[in-house]
Amino acid sequence: MILFHNDYNQTCHPRILNRMLQINNQQMDGYGVDACSEHARALICKICGRQDLAVHFLVGGTQTNLTVIDAALRPHQAVLCPVYGHINTHETGAVEATGHKVLPLECCSGKISAEQIEAVMCAHNQDPNREHTVQPKMVYISNPTEFGTIYTYNELEAISKICKKYGMYLFVDGARLGYALEASGNDITLSDLAELTDVFYIGGTKVGAMFGEAVVISNPALALDFRYLIKQHGAMLAKGWLLGVQFEVLFEDGLYMELSRHANKMADKIRSVLSRCNCPMLIEGTTNQIFPILPDPVLNDLKDHFTFSEQERIDEEHRAVRFCTSWSTEEKDVDELCAILDISLKEHQ
Amino acid sequence: MILFHNDYNQTCHPRILNRMLQINNQQMDGYGVDACSEHARALICKICGRQDLAVHFLVGGTQTNLTVIDAALRPHQAVLCPVYGHINTHETGAVEATGHKVLPLECCSGKISAEQIEAVMCAHNQDPNREHTVQPKMVYISNPTEFGTIYTYNELEAISKICKKYGMYLFVDGARLGYALEASGNDITLSDLAELTDVFYIGGTKVGAMFGEAVVISNPALALDFRYLIKQHGAMLAKGWLLGVQFEVLFEDGLYMELSRHANKMADKIRSVLSRCNCPMLIEGTTNQIFPILPDPVLNDLKDHFTFSEQERIDEEHRAVRFCTSWSTEEKDVDELCAILDISLKEHQ
Amino acid sequence: MILFHNDYNQTCHPRILNRMLQINNQQMDGYGVDACSEHARALICKICGRQDLAVHFLVGGTQTNLTVIDAALRPHQAVLCPVYGHINTHETGAVEATGHKVLPLECCSGKISAEQIEAVMCAHNQDPNREHTVQPKMVYISNPTEFGTIYTYNELEAISKICKKYGMYLFVDGARLGYALEASGNDITLSDLAELTDVFYIGGTKVGAMFGEAVVISNPALALDFRYLIKQHGAMLAKGWLLGVQFEVLFEDGLYMELSRHANKMADKIRSVLSRCNCPMLIEGTTNQIFPILPDPVLNDLKDHFTFSEQERIDEEHRAVRFCTSWSTEEKDVDELCAILDISLKEHQ
Amino acid sequence: MILFHNDYNQTCHPRILNRMLQINNQQMDGYGVDACSEHARALICKICGRQDLAVHFLVGGTQTNLTVIDAALRPHQAVLCPVYGHINTHETGAVEATGHKVLPLECCSGKISAEQIEAVMCAHNQDPNREHTVQPKMVYISNPTEFGTIYTYNELEAISKICKKYGMYLFVDGARLGYALEASGNDITLSDLAELTDVFYIGGTKVGAMFGEAVVISNPALALDFRYLIKQHGAMLAKGWLLGVQFEVLFEDGLYMELSRHANKMADKIRSVLSRCNCPMLIEGTTNQIFPILPDPVLNDLKDHFTFSEQERIDEEHRAVRFCTSWSTEEKDVDELCAILDISLKEHQ
Repeated sequence: MILFHNDYNQTCHPRILNRMLQINNQQMDGYGVDACSEHARALICKICGRQDLAVHFLVGGTQTNLTVIDAALRPHQAVLCPVYGHINTHETGAVEATGHKVLPLECCSGKISAEQIEAVMCAHNQDPNREHTVQPKMVYISNPTEFGTIYTYNELEAISKICKKYGMYLFVDGARLGYALEASGNDITLSDLAELTDVFYIGGTKVGAMFGEAVVISNPALALDFRYLIKQHGAMLAKGWLLGVQFEVLFEDGLYMELSRHANKMADKIRSVLSRCNCPMLIEGTTNQIFPILPDPVLNDLKDHFTFSEQERIDEEHRAVRFCTSWSTEEKDVDELCAILDISLKEHQ
Repeated sequence: MILFHNDYNQTCHPRILNRMLQINNQQMDGYGVDACSEHARALICKICGRQDLAVHFLVGGTQTNLTVIDAALRPHQAVLCPVYGHINTHETGAVEATGHKVLPLECCSGKISAEQIEAVMCAHNQDPNREHTVQPKMVYISNPTEFGTIYTYNELEAISKICKKYGMYLFVDGARLGYALEASGNDITLSDLAELTDVFYIGGTKVGAMFGEAVVISNPALALDFRYLIKQHGAMLAKGWLLGVQFEVLFEDGLYMELSRHANKMADKIRSVLSRCNCPMLIEGTTNQIFPILPDPVLNDLKDHFTFSEQERIDEEHRAVRFCTSWSTEEKDVDELCAILDISLKEHQ
Repeated sequence: MILFHNDYNQTCHPRILNRMLQINNQQMDGYGVDACSEHARALICKICGRQDLAVHFLVGGTQTNLTVIDAALRPHQAVLCPVYGHINTHETGAVEATGHKVLPLECCSGKISAEQIEAVMCAHNQDPNREHTVQPKMVYISNPTEFGTIYTYNELEAISKICKKYGMYLFVDGARLGYALEASGNDITLSDLAELTDVFYIGGTKVGAMFGEAVVISNPALALDFRYLIKQHGAMLAKGWLLGVQFEVLFEDGLYMELSRHANKMADKIRSVLSRCNCPMLIEGTTNQIFPILPDPVLNDLKDHFTFSEQERIDEEHRAVRFCTSWSTEEKDVDELCAILDISLKEHQ
Repeated sequence: MILFHNDYNQTCHPRILNRMLQINNQQMDGYGVDACSEHARALICKICGRQDLAVHFLVGGTQTNLTVIDAALRPHQAVLCPVYGHINTHETGAVEATGHKVLPLECCSGKISAEQIEAVMCAHNQDPNREHTVQPKMVYISNPTEFGTIYTYNELEAISKICKKYGMYLFVDGARLGYALEASGNDITLSDLAELTDVFYIGGTKVGAMFGEAVVISNPALALDFRYLIKQHGAMLAKGWLLGVQFEVLFEDGLYMELSRHANKMADKIRSVLSRCNCPMLIEGTTNQIFPILPDPVLNDLKDHFTFSEQERIDEEHRAVRFCTSWSTEEKDVDELCAILDISLKEHQ
């Protein structure tokens, strides 16, 4: 069985394990103040083009989201996010468990717009009884989104401006950030992210690391006392160098981007065959997630060889599904998938 | 510089890294439902002598404590613990952040007694206005304690009985459990722990693993929906097999106990020299933590070669400090420490 | 200016103040264990036809909602409610502040159906990754709803059955309960509510009392330790008899129902004139809230004499507004409103 | 039976009920923005000698404490308080339920000192791992304390200075504030409190009101968005004028101080007889609470006629108890108590 149902089904890039082996007999300081972590912080600051960023390494995405949001908000404040945003759908109410309401906005292909945010803020500020409602104070978006789509520079800049206008924080969940940065059509850089957001994170778990997310904070108000919050949420890894060393490997010579490009290229191959066969897509995208609408017999042909995840039933004969490639996807597996797709689609369409 | 200030200053036992290397090119299911994790669960059930235990793997200690306690308590319920208990002193209010009061009890060498618990419960139940106070519903103890002391079977059994009598949960924090189980004077087994507690955990981070704590739940009420709680607290590792594989290695042929024995033996060597030099101890113990009261000049002699942690100033010329050995402590380093201690103590005492 | 913008703009029915005067020089026990509160509890049990109900008196609606919901749910559990439900829209995230997600369901005239609940539960239970989402454990509805509509016995019974089928609690917010019970078309009794729900409350604040909501719990699991929760949320009134005495007056000889009938009758008068003038309604109802869609010039004619609340703009010339009558609405004021409505509608429609 | 076990056993001063009667047929705006509340705010600002204070009226003490503390603290921050502080002992963990640890300090007669606070802050700031512990950010004290003792101006000023030095908020719980302000030996004014604290409250429930606490905020950072917090915690009374009107009556012509003086005078009478009989006191004080140590037979003589609360057993023949007088205590009842005390003490001492 070849796994295409997610992008975190293999441990890590061999270079990371090798580096871990190299330092395995060294004694290190705990809690993220070791030399590896410091070096990784410096690498990330450099690639973001700024020295004044606070960089913290956490273990996983939900943990990162809840820690960042809890650090930012007062009790009556809420976070705006696309209705399909990960914090709204797949984190078991982790944000609410810290006391904050998540305010979902209707979204198009996983994205929201500056206009939507402005409309919410206008309505809130004009409400004479606004203290009977939560105060939106942060905007959470993912790039790429949960549907593999990406924001353009202009879209992100517009959202950033609206956030500044209304005194809101902008937080970009980058669990799959590499796949966005290397996507065809992308015009956003890490340095743009540091400039336009108050905080974002660079996902490692889904892009070559064993685990680990690098939180990059450019707003000093959010950076204040952030380590207390990490510790309080059980997110401070005792052996913090395990995070530092991974981001060192990923960022010292471009591995992070290289792995991301690979995954996108693998996805492109799959997109090609689907396109050639005129297969409709639930959502168009250019990152490592692909959402084709396939006839049931095709899915039947695939299911004994490949895993994929079900999105929704479209009609009596078609379902939308998701295939994920990743940094670890092997080209031969993609070729095998493409071959079967090609044959089966021709037969059943 | 040789580090003796904690027992988590080295990555992991080589066998663990080797096993990770072996599976690095395998595709795995996420979130802890993989074959490695299942095997590790079976190994732990076996060593605990019961098949009906729920075993979950989490990343770190604070995370485990807050998840277990939050899963167990209703909002008005509180957890009793020794005043020096880790949840009361070194977790940045993680338990309170989930809404629950920690009720500290005076303790002797880090331990509390069944009598103390009973006294609290009697007072609570007799208070006509008891709903104006929190309801103690769980007892949290560490074994070994934060001072390296251990509970005897009789002490633990007595606490367990009182908990049952008052309908309370007993939770044993085993962040350093191996060091207790292998300590001279210990008469408690893993199977006793499964019998006498409602939930306990087997610490990996401090006993040979990269990271990881194995939560063992024998009370079905606590096991119900536990995975939701793990996810909500950001404690569900995407690549859950990384936890499973570590506990497989630690428990498939006794490595966990072997590493624990080693650390205790190293500590015994240090205790020997201290004892020979008639050095007083802040607290006597038989595990991997040692709390000597040393003259300032001796500490001065040590501090350029070894790290240790300061406990408290005893008088104008003496301080109590803590040395930790661990699974990774090398005998030559201990010998070096012992040699210097021996010379310096003879000179300055 | 005559106030029609809400139903809590006057202190309380004179009989309540008189009773308070009568007991003003008596010494009483605090925290709700006084004789008045006990008597009020007995009256409510009697009218609900059961002796095994736990009855608690709280001060206000938001306080009641958050206390009941927090008492009922474990951390990973959520409450389903209509998207317009008060807990979702006008309580400043009070439920989320206790850690729980509110799951909004699309609603028709403020009501949700058993089918909707079942669909959610089916989807949740079939989701192999359901622990990545919150677990719906309670259904919250209001009767009458925020739009003045009421549930029929059959609708409520169907919801109750689905809740039982899926092990969920059913909670009815009765902030305006009297107005539902006395509405034309209502076929639900207090005794039905006690039977079909796990917990509901009888609103006093909006139905003749100074303040006060009577929580009626029929499910013993929810009743357990409820006073601790009341106290923890700052909801235990020191002079608890002030709540007891109000519910005594309201329930000892039918005053609660009488006041409710009065409000509905006043609303009917307004509905009559609107109907005679063929004025369209945003939502049809039979309780004390009326939602006409009125031409701007009519609203202009009204606004210097009467308050009302704006609901939404319908088109360039019409807005939907809300008029509320209450136990304290005077017939002469209603007549004045009706007269002006009649004239103005004839002129501007 | 005459009640001396607390100071909230009677509804309210008759003038308050009369004023409520006067406005009972008036229509009012809700949620505390009515004319009565505005007038009461102005009166309180005036007596505090400042126009820039934010004044909010809440219903009860626990509610006020949890709302103020939650509004002030970020998640990792904690509140220092005397070990016997009300928030630490008698509020069912309400502060912890908002996520914050309460850090108890040993206290002398219910009071803590500036030196104690400074010691805590020094230790915290010098701790290299301080992010593993909560950050003390607020000091909570009660005046009078739970033991009826009062702070002097110098003591309060010293605490205030230390708080400023360390960037901490000072919060004074004034549930019984009147009794402190009118106590013999007091040299603190309301205007001093506004100057020296960041926030304090003037208790109504125990000093003549039906219910109600007036929160006075002088620090603008704490005042920001405070109404959201009130609403979120279910503490915003719909009929807010009920709070306003009470504080109008209490502060328009000195009634609050007059009632407080009365209670203290009644307590002084009891203290006199105890002193004449050489009865030892658990704690000396000059407010409305008295803590004599009495022989069991004396308590036996009293218990059929008077209520009092048990503090602690002193020895086999003596118990410390508490008598409370209040604004509503009648002199004839005090005389009766004094007479029996006098006879019984002479007989049994």
